[in-house]
Parts: sequence; structure tokens; C-alpha cells
Amino acid sequence: MLGEFDIIARYFATPDQSLPISGVTLGPGDDCALLSPAAGTELAMSVDTSVADVHFPGDAPPEAIGHRALAVALSDLAAMGARPRGCLMALTLPHAEPAWLERFAQGFRDLGRYTSTPLVGGDVTRGTLSIAVTVIGDVPVGQALRRSGAMPGERLAVTGALGGSHGGLRMWQAGGHDLEDPLLAAYLRPAPQLEAGCALRGLASAALDISDGLLADLGHLCHASGVGASLDPACIPLAPTLEMTLGSEGALHAALNGGDDYQLLVSVPETAWEDALRRCADCGVTLTEIGRVLAEPGIRGIPETLKGAGWQHFTGDGQ
Amino acid sequence: MLGEFDIIARYFATPDQSLPISGVTLGPGDDCALLSPAAGTELAMSVDTSVADVHFPGDAPPEAIGHRALAVALSDLAAMGARPRGCLMALTLPHAEPAWLERFAQGFRDLGRYTSTPLVGGDVTRGTLSIAVTVIGDVPVGQALRRSGAMPGERLAVTGALGGSHGGLRMWQAGGHDLEDPLLAAYLRPAPQLEAGCALRGLASAALDISDGLLADLGHLCHASGVGASLDPACIPLAPTLEMTLGSEGALHAALNGGDDYQLLVSVPETAWEDALRRCADCGVTLTEIGRVLAEPGIRGIPETLKGAGWQHFTGDGQ
Repeated sequence: MLGEFDIIARYFATPDQSLPISGVTLGPGDDCALLSPAAGTELAMSVDTSVADVHFPGDAPPEAIGHRALAVALSDLAAMGARPRGCLMALTLPHAEPAWLERFAQGFRDLGRYTSTPLVGGDVTRGTLSIAVTVIGDVPVGQALRRSGAMPGERLAVTGALGGSHGGLRMWQAGGHDLEDPLLAAYLRPAPQLEAGCALRGLASAALDISDGLLADLGHLCHASGVGASLDPACIPLAPTLEMTLGSEGALHAALNGGDDYQLLVSVPETAWEDALRRCADCGVTLTEIGRVLAEPGIRGIPETLKGAGWQHFTGDGQ
Repeated sequence: MLGEFDIIARYFATPDQSLPISGVTLGPGDDCALLSPAAGTELAMSVDTSVADVHFPGDAPPEAIGHRALAVALSDLAAMGARPRGCLMALTLPHAEPAWLERFAQGFRDLGRYTSTPLVGGDVTRGTLSIAVTVIGDVPVGQALRRSGAMPGERLAVTGALGGSHGGLRMWQAGGHDLEDPLLAAYLRPAPQLEAGCALRGLASAALDISDGLLADLGHLCHASGVGASLDPACIPLAPTLEMTLGSEGALHAALNGGDDYQLLVSVPETAWEDALRRCADCGVTLTEIGRVLAEPGIRGIPETLKGAGWQHFTGDGQ
């Protein structure tokens, strides 16, 4: 049987994660990792826990579980316009099965390599499968995209398309297991919008990632900014094949309330809008206007029948 | 019932953790926290997960669980000679019980305040009780205490006393619940040796914290440094009342193999020894020589009967 140190050494301290990596002075294996912050930057950091059968199906492909655990954490860096510098993983496992671990680590490592996010530290314990990933990024001083800067009159926009993850969840529950399907891919292999986040620095006045559902997260942005919003449901970009799968009303409901899309929701002043569109296009990301920031609190334009409760772990209303 | 955001707002984003805190540009509540690294420093970071009934008794006092979860993570900063700058907590809870949470948060916050470690971010999910704490500290560039610098001929020394945590575990299992007892306190409310870690910068050639047991951790230090060691069992400082509780042989076995003491094990060159003693004394910490670094691999001086397996989560040999 594998010991804790064997697991870390074998699956997570692989050569392609080893030094030299820009900014990482000391990788896994000591009491702490050491990072050298770049001059003129601030550090952005966040932690996200993914629990089996709460955030992802415990029987999902291990590669997807590894990918997803890192992706949802990286999405918080994207939402601040930060560039990833490293991550730490606290992995809790019911048992150490080499075949599963190998595939899990592969999914985690592949996304880490693709996004330049070396694993610099970790901890492995025994228990119900869950993965807490802490990400560390940097951002030029004063340029982080916060939730609190939206001003009345600005455009509200989202990257990519929404509702796909909820559609994928439904599909998985119905027995669909083809990860090439765009909805299942959105659910199990979400792509953090890191490039778009960096591209929108200096342009967006406020930003967050859509993890709890568009309406819930727009509520967070409005609350932090002390504003309200109006949305145009007809403008909300729906994930490909979503209407086909859930019907028109179901698709819109998923786009408004389904969590886990990991797209960015931003507020953009009129003067920066064309630049924002162009910079997103330059990194291959669509940016779609979905409404406007209002001075009065509350969210307008959405019929009550289309409003869900958003993701709330301890109230039982979430997915 | 409390929602995820309510829990974070009510218990962990309290006024005494609010800004301004040196180096924290943005605390909890946005997608990421923002920290400003101090000039001339490197960042040290580590994550430690504490799982109920694996690392601590699930029915321990909630204050102790909160304290302990942060303490074991801070101990890794101590082992690098780093000063805490902040922490993130991924809390997994079976249910959100306000009375329990209030007491848990109190224990966590009290240690955070005492050690100047503001909680800058967190995540709350539903599941088996477990707490993954990521700590971030800083250390002057090039001065971090690594595991890999021990040289033959140097003195091996430990801070404080050993075996207390194992004694406390035994006491808890036997029904003892008085947290004023020094052994139970060592087990459930360990003190990270942050001041001693900083004091030993520039003096110790290698350091780590004793979490897996002295012999296991000495093995890690020797492996990283490419050296061996001889220990003098008669010199190993035993926790107060440990011999009374476990007998002489049991106490020594606990000191050598019992994990979770969170004292520092260091290697100190002859020329730095007097300074190391004095600096530790200045911060009220005893430093005790327990052996010497040898050029040949292996650990000498310990009879086979006193050797345990150290903490290994997935091999079943640990505590």
C-alpha cells in the first residue's frame, strides 16, 4: 500500500513540475514552498474545495476530477485578472488506489502545465474524497479586478456561454458519460477564463466568476458595488446544444441559475467597451453584453418564474 | 439554517480580522484576497488538513479543533523561519450548527490574533468535518530554514519537550478531558514555534517541525541533507508528566515516535550553538541537544525496541 509521502512523490512532484519555474524558489518536499514575488505585483490567493457527490460525481473520470478541482480554483484568479504562480492541494482520499491516483494526477497536472500553475505543496489525508486547492497568482499593484467597482450606466457582460454546466449535470444524472459532449465538458472540465481576466484589467470596473449562478453572482457584484442591474434575458448567451437538451425555458433557467459555469461577469464603462471586446476576441473569447448597471438596488428584467435560489450549501436550495 | 456566505460573514470575517492589517490589501469577500509582499522577502506557503477522528477527536472542544487546525499549519511556517502573513481555510462541515461554529471560530481567531495571522479567504462546503488551512508567511530572501542543509558534525537539537501529544491522545482515549492538563493541551492545543523559528534563522543549517514523530522527521531531515545521525536517548526532553503517565519506556517511545508535537528539530553548527541557545532563551524556548549529524546514512543510538513506524496515513502504521 502507498504511504502519504509516496503518493506526493509519485504523483504530484513530477519532473515537469520541478524547478526551475519562474518565481518558484523551492517546490514540494520541504515544510513550505518558497515563492519569489515579482516586483510591482500584489499576490492574489483563494481556496476552493471540491467534495465528491457535492461538487462533482464521485464516479466521474479521475482525470476530470483532477482537472475540475484545479480549474474552479483558478477561476478565482481569472476573476481578479491575476496570473497563476502556483497552487497547493489538500487531497483527502478514502484509500490510495494507484490507478485512480495516476489518472487524477494526470488531469490536475495537465491543466497545471497548460495554465503555468505548478503544484508547490500539498497534503494527503484519509477520509471522504475531497480536494481543497489553494491558488496563488500575481497582478500588477492596484490593477486587480474587484467586485466592488461597478458604476451605474456601465455595461454588464459575460465571457463565453452560460448554463452548460447545469445541462451537463442533468445529462450525467441521466446516464450520459461522453466527455466530448459540450455540456458534459462544461460540467466536468470547465475552462478557467485566465486570459480574458488578464485582458480585462484596466478596462472592467468590476468582475467575478460565475460559480453560484448568474443571478446569484450578479447579486454579489451589485451588493459589493452598491448598485442594481437590469438584465435582458434575450441577450444571455446559452451554451451550445443547451436549448436542444433542456428546452428554451429550461435553458434560460439553467443559464440564469445553474452554477459552475466559471465564466466571468464584468461591468465595463462605455469608453472601454470596444477595447474590451477586441482584447477578449484577441484571446479567442466572446464577450456578450447582457444588461446594464443601475443606481437602484435589485435586479430587473427577469420574470420571477426564471429565478432560482443559487448555490447555497447549507440551505439545501442549490444543485 | 445558515448559508455558506452567512457562515463566512458571521464567523470568519470578524472586525478584529478586518483591514488595515499590514500587508493585506484585500481581505475575505472577493474572489481572491490580495497581499502585498514586503520588499526583500520570499513567500513561504504550506497547507495542512485536519480530519475529524483521524487527526483530532471529532468530539473535542470546538475551540481546540479551531486552534489546532491553524496551529499545525503555522508550524510549517515556524519550521522555515517564516513570519505569518495570512491564512485561508477550506472548512468542510456535516451541518452548520451556530453554537459549534461560534466556538470553533473563536479558537481559530484567537490563535490567529495571537500569531498575527489574519484569515484572508475561505471556503465552506458540506461533508465530513475537515479543515484544510493554507498559511502564507514571509522570510528574508535566502534565509528560509530548509531541511537540506545539515552537515556532519553539527549538533541536533529540539525545541521544547516531546511526546506530550501522544500522551494526550492516550489520555483522551482513556476518557480524560481536562484541557488544563499539559499532555491534553499538547495534543489538542499545540503551540507553533514561530518565534523560535525566526530566532534560529541564520544559525540553524536545517530545520523541520516534528509532526510525524522525532525518528520519522529526523529521517526526513537526514534524507534531504544526505547525512545520518546519532541520537542520545537519555538527552531527549520528555514532556512534563509524560513518564508518570506512560512509564519510562513508554514515555521515551512516545517522544521518539509519537507525532504531532510540533516542536522544531534543527541542526546547528558548533560555531552557532551558543547564539542559538541564547536566542531561543530570549523567546522563552528551551533548545536541547539530542545528538549529532553523521556523514553515514542511518540513525544510530536508538534500540530497535524503541523504534515505531511514524505517521503514515495510508499504511495503517501511524497513530
